[in-house]
Amino acid sequence: RELVDRLARQSPARLAIITFGGVILVFTGLLSLPAATSTGTRAPFIDAFFTATSSVCVTGLVTVPTGTYWSGFGQAVILLGMQVGGLGVMTLASILGAAVSRRIGLTQKLLTASETKTTRLGEVGSLIQVVVITSLTLEAAIAALLLPRFLMLRESFGEALWHSVFYAVSAFNNAGFIPTAEGLAPHVGDWALLLPIILGVFIGSLGFPVILNIARQGRRFSRWNLHAKLTVTMSVTLVVLGTFAFAALEWRNKDTFGPLGWSEKILGALFAGVMPRSGGFSTVDVGAMHESSWLVTDALMFVGGGSASTAGGIKVTTLAVMLLAIISEARGDRDVEAFGRRIPRDTLRLSVAVVFVGATTILAACLALLEITGWTLDVVLFEVISAFATVGLSTGVTHLLPDAGKLVLVALMFVGRTGTMTLAAALALRDRSRVIRLPEERPIIG
Amino acid sequence: RELVDRLARQSPARLAIITFGGVILVFTGLLSLPAATSTGTRAPFIDAFFTATSSVCVTGLVTVPTGTYWSGFGQAVILLGMQVGGLGVMTLASILGAAVSRRIGLTQKLLTASETKTTRLGEVGSLIQVVVITSLTLEAAIAALLLPRFLMLRESFGEALWHSVFYAVSAFNNAGFIPTAEGLAPHVGDWALLLPIILGVFIGSLGFPVILNIARQGRRFSRWNLHAKLTVTMSVTLVVLGTFAFAALEWRNKDTFGPLGWSEKILGALFAGVMPRSGGFSTVDVGAMHESSWLVTDALMFVGGGSASTAGGIKVTTLAVMLLAIISEARGDRDVEAFGRRIPRDTLRLSVAVVFVGATTILAACLALLEITGWTLDVVLFEVISAFATVGLSTGVTHLLPDAGKLVLVALMFVGRTGTMTLAAALALRDRSRVIRLPEERPIIG
Ligand SMILES: [K+]
Ligand SMILES: [K+]
Repeated sequence: RELVDRLARQSPARLAIITFGGVILVFTGLLSLPAATSTGTRAPFIDAFFTATSSVCVTGLVTVPTGTYWSGFGQAVILLGMQVGGLGVMTLASILGAAVSRRIGLTQKLLTASETKTTRLGEVGSLIQVVVITSLTLEAAIAALLLPRFLMLRESFGEALWHSVFYAVSAFNNAGFIPTAEGLAPHVGDWALLLPIILGVFIGSLGFPVILNIARQGRRFSRWNLHAKLTVTMSVTLVVLGTFAFAALEWRNKDTFGPLGWSEKILGALFAGVMPRSGGFSTVDVGAMHESSWLVTDALMFVGGGSASTAGGIKVTTLAVMLLAIISEARGDRDVEAFGRRIPRDTLRLSVAVVFVGATTILAACLALLEITGWTLDVVLFEVISAFATVGLSTGVTHLLPDAGKLVLVALMFVGRTGTMTLAAALALRDRSRVIRLPEERPIIG
Repeated sequence: RELVDRLARQSPARLAIITFGGVILVFTGLLSLPAATSTGTRAPFIDAFFTATSSVCVTGLVTVPTGTYWSGFGQAVILLGMQVGGLGVMTLASILGAAVSRRIGLTQKLLTASETKTTRLGEVGSLIQVVVITSLTLEAAIAALLLPRFLMLRESFGEALWHSVFYAVSAFNNAGFIPTAEGLAPHVGDWALLLPIILGVFIGSLGFPVILNIARQGRRFSRWNLHAKLTVTMSVTLVVLGTFAFAALEWRNKDTFGPLGWSEKILGALFAGVMPRSGGFSTVDVGAMHESSWLVTDALMFVGGGSASTAGGIKVTTLAVMLLAIISEARGDRDVEAFGRRIPRDTLRLSVAVVFVGATTILAACLALLEITGWTLDVVLFEVISAFATVGLSTGVTHLLPDAGKLVLVALMFVGRTGTMTLAAALALRDRSRVIRLPEERPIIG
């Protein structure tokens, strides 16, 4: 326990990389067992490695169909991988967040406990306990909502239970794995089945600190802390924007929403609007969507979900801080402000770093994949952002990648999962004050 | 004079938009004359409008081939458009810069005169005079370097002079128009012809404040002001990176550098490395380049050249400030520093605004063009960034655009040319101090 705390303070990057790297290797080993495939033959290393990474990094990109290629045992391993990965992300991010806020010297000892008197969460052990209990409770609730629907769809109780649990875990952890060959496509207009999944993905994408803050403060928006307010506001805004965009762009596409009824189209647009950040499920063929919808998806995937959540991307608060900074710049204000609070100046620098490093990673990975595959930018960019932001949506080309291309995606999923949060924490933990200030000189911008 | 100064201070956006909009309309009228085309028939409005915008915004994108479609008179109108546009950009940007520095209350009255005692430039009239004299002198020098080469290529004196002047003006103003049907493709390995053009484009892309600063301070780097140091360092870095990238990616492409000799390949890579920011000439078929080269070009075009230059994009100093902020964040420094100077904090906020508004504009334009054309993202993104950053490179699809698509590009060229500099100036001119500071609260980033 002390070791973890010390590691988190001294080298958060190392802690996250060691933990995730180790877990991925263990799950690669498990998926390499002959018992893991439905045919009983050993899976190729690259597919076991890819699937283990995708599962532990809660991405959902697959090189082999989850529902048919893997055996029941293999699917259980994937389920466990998602669960461990999701819990790991939330715990690690919270520990890092705690280390950051301690170092920065906020009055709050832990971000997650920012408005309560308790310091119980200062202990890593109890933190993990709270994360686990919260996650399992919410997953159980989603599974309970799904179960009757699967039973109504004439599945046997065992099958319905398995599907409910799998979808609940996959949704809450924003993992995007599907336990059946046909996935959610047959249920494109099924509100009773899709709403719980949408809810699970959305709540999971808010992030642990927000969930805990809301759980403690209740539904009164005004009592939430700034982080929760920003996260929820941005998330809802992006869902609404995405829903309208997909409805507008795909309404008459004969390969996606075209043949559907009104209610189904609206549900399809809502589903497509929620999933890029970063649930990764799809009810229509993403490959058949318009190029413009792909671009909207790219943008939403890049932004991702909430900090210390199972979602990936640069995170909604990062975008929010940049937007607020632009607004305050446009108004000529001295401070960046939101909801009656002043946002510290160095958060903008941190946001710029996160966005810039993310964009550069995506650019480099695109160049690599373009050279490896010779494909066009549209599919490559989609695949790269999906892996980086651990979304799991695909235009349908993942399984066509050569091994080198699969390894690029593996590296992206790993970097996307561990990189953004450790980068932010590592930067925030540095602190070098300097007494002598240099003379000021202003370059021209723009 | 006073009117201009007042307009610049009160509404820099309006000043730039009125000036550029008016000039574009005049040139559209000139190009709509029957005498402007080689056949003597009136050009369609959309082509006259597009060419006028492209010429005045020094972009170089064309819907009809400059060398064959337009008459000698038409080409002279285009030449004049580039010249007026280039001078207009440098003058306007300098006026805005002056207004900004006056408002901010720097000791320097004009950025361009930052290290001299003279306040002569405070007068708009003399500023224009200096810009015009400097531009014409440099253009004459480039033309003088080109003339002997064209004569050696067995052109008549009149023809050689016309081509020298046209290429000199087109290069220094980063306009990218070519006076012949075949352009520079036949001269792909011609160092004597291409080096002056490269030089002209590079110097033009540094921007007027940098050129003046270097002219006054001489070649001693240490005596330049911060803006000149940052601009030159970033520009050289990007040229070197671009050259290596294009050499590596296109070395064996049989449709571009493949059939060339070593020396020609190196010149081709250097040429391709300089032109995206934002000369817009090409010696090889851009449409035949690899997708990866397009992506590298996209990135270089987005960055663009120096502030108050004839180049477009978000500008190299904007990128430099963001990179420096990231470095200082990584080192845990309190201030952002470069070359022994502290960079004011609000420049980062300004940079974020410029980059964000630019990226959003490009995203929106891509969505519009994808919907209008149904093309793939690779060519659309290339075309959009080329227009926004007034580069003029194209994968060869500009003339295939429907009218609505051409109008999108016209709007992009206009916004790209006038938007970035007026945005920066308009933001920097706002100033609203506030006595009451709100309590601070820190959201989680990344
Ligand atoms: K996912
Ligand atoms: K140009």
